[in-house]
Amino acid sequence: MKATVMYGAHDVRVQIVPDAELVEPTDALVRVTRACICGSDLWPYNSMPPNEIGNRMGHEFIGIVEATGPDVRTVKKGDLVVAPFAWSDGTCEFCLQGLQTSCLHGGWWGGVTLDGGQGEAVRVPLADGTLVKLPVGPDDAVMPSLLTLTDVMGTGHHAARAAKVQPGKIVAVVGDGAVGLCGVIAARRLGAERIIMLGRHADRIALARAFGATDIVSERGDAAIERVRELTSGLGAHSVLECVGHGEAMRTAVSIARPGGAVGRVGVPQETTIPNAQQTFYANITIAGGPAPVRAYIEELLPDILDGRIEPGLDARAAAGSRPTQVPVPFRRPDRREVNA
Amino acid sequence: MKATVMYGAHDVRVQIVPDAELVEPTDALVRVTRACICGSDLWPYNSMPPNEIGNRMGHEFIGIVEATGPDVRTVKKGDLVVAPFAWSDGTCEFCLQGLQTSCLHGGWWGGVTLDGGQGEAVRVPLADGTLVKLPVGPDDAVMPSLLTLTDVMGTGHHAARAAKVQPGKIVAVVGDGAVGLCGVIAARRLGAERIIMLGRHADRIALARAFGATDIVSERGDAAIERVRELTSGLGAHSVLECVGHGEAMRTAVSIARPGGAVGRVGVPQETTIPNAQQTFYANITIAGGPAPVRAYIEELLPDILDGRIEPGLDARAAAGSRPTQVPVPFRRPDRREVNA
Repeated sequence: MKATVMYGAHDVRVQIVPDAELVEPTDALVRVTRACICGSDLWPYNSMPPNEIGNRMGHEFIGIVEATGPDVRTVKKGDLVVAPFAWSDGTCEFCLQGLQTSCLHGGWWGGVTLDGGQGEAVRVPLADGTLVKLPVGPDDAVMPSLLTLTDVMGTGHHAARAAKVQPGKIVAVVGDGAVGLCGVIAARRLGAERIIMLGRHADRIALARAFGATDIVSERGDAAIERVRELTSGLGAHSVLECVGHGEAMRTAVSIARPGGAVGRVGVPQETTIPNAQQTFYANITIAGGPAPVRAYIEELLPDILDGRIEPGLDARAAAGSRPTQVPVPFRRPDRREVNA
Repeated sequence: MKATVMYGAHDVRVQIVPDAELVEPTDALVRVTRACICGSDLWPYNSMPPNEIGNRMGHEFIGIVEATGPDVRTVKKGDLVVAPFAWSDGTCEFCLQGLQTSCLHGGWWGGVTLDGGQGEAVRVPLADGTLVKLPVGPDDAVMPSLLTLTDVMGTGHHAARAAKVQPGKIVAVVGDGAVGLCGVIAARRLGAERIIMLGRHADRIALARAFGATDIVSERGDAAIERVRELTSGLGAHSVLECVGHGEAMRTAVSIARPGGAVGRVGVPQETTIPNAQQTFYANITIAGGPAPVRAYIEELLPDILDGRIEPGLDARAAAGSRPTQVPVPFRRPDRREVNA
């Protein structure tokens, strides 16, 4: 079959690889109908050292079940299914509490040992714990939104949950990438009264407004912090969604949370420490979040997508007129080796 | 009246100061019957630069109301009252959500402008928001435990709440000082199944066991982390109470929390950053806490003390036999100037 393999920075090849096939009795074989390129794919695309073996790419996909192992019970041949960006058993203590990204027996797609989503087919380990059946056809118009359930919509939702978004509260979203935009959707869905988007890209800001952002802060650093304080009677936001991961973004995030507030971080941290330890302490600010257990959120978010209450796959051109722009793409991917470290 | 004034490191004088008196209509005048020396008083005691004016000391006291301003409604002359380590209006948005240490109009005892608890009397600003009437006499046998409501018991409880202690879960307490010991009491009170105390002082460990600690870890650093993992099937504790504030203690705390767990920090951070930003991210560990809004907890904890369900004032000698030992004393105090920063 054909699949995408990355051999180094700027060296991505679509080539023939061994056909995906069932190995374990808990596997499903899924023929991919839709897949995403994730923003996190750009990191190795820009920096991966040359490697003769190559890494299979892609961790966001939808497809049709072609075969199942004898122990698979929840999906069957012919089902259209969505896969979260991490596979998981669904039965360990972490899965049972909804933290599938810490599954004791789970893992990540692609790399050197497993199929990736950017290929014709994928062997899906632990299919019962991992896959969710979709009640639509593979070419349904809602497919762009359903694809976001693999990562970015669940990740934005996780940021909002970690930041304790509640009805009537003020939310700030740091980062106008796909995750930040989905964070806006999630904040609005959870009842936020005001949603302040910190971002600078006109096309993304148009999407943010379409998704429910009420205020835009395009300043950076101290000026951004000052602007958010002006917008919040000097107190800061109740909930801050950190959707970037760079040090400056995290510093901004913890600086714009009000006393007793919370920062939900889903941007992969690029620094080894969390800044402002003392200020966040004296203000009793909670810092939470991490790799989103998107598997836990698919059932919750799916009806809202099917019913049109949220539309994370909205084409940016629909929000910004006819000007060409980037469609929001999934954004980040944790490194499995660092999980549970 | 007489009061304690600190003029510099190792220079503490009990001297005559102006009598405490009512100034604002919301003030109460409280004659002190009991007061504590806080562990945080030891910081200036060991390091305060010489100062000709001097700082009035003490932020943990119980006393009898001697007079009230015309706007005071909840306490009256003759009432025995307990004061939390921060005074607050009880009506601002932070007080209403139970975060009195971020009160928009509150402050801290002592210093150069207000009376401290280590004196014969105290002018109590915003008396209605600050003071809680006690339904016992000033020499009741339970007085040592009631005194802990001014700070350490509420602070240990805050750590447990911030760390999301729940029935049946595993809790680890970093630090065997007064706050850590109260954290053990709080964790047990909230239903923890196992309570692992990380500490090295025999007398305090005896108290910890009396308060409900089920396991003692006396190793430090990586060895302590390893030992807690051994005790928790390799996963770590659900809830970790950080009751020290030093960098090494915080590193230990975030390293012994399991995926999806929480660290409740009440030790005043001695470092400007929180360590292990990436490990805590990948494991979805929540970091919460700060100066305890002990005012919010007095009503909740008071009945348990009066009924003898908890005894935070337990004399260490009662727990450790007749060997002389330190009575647990209140422990830490935030710097008001840094709150709401």
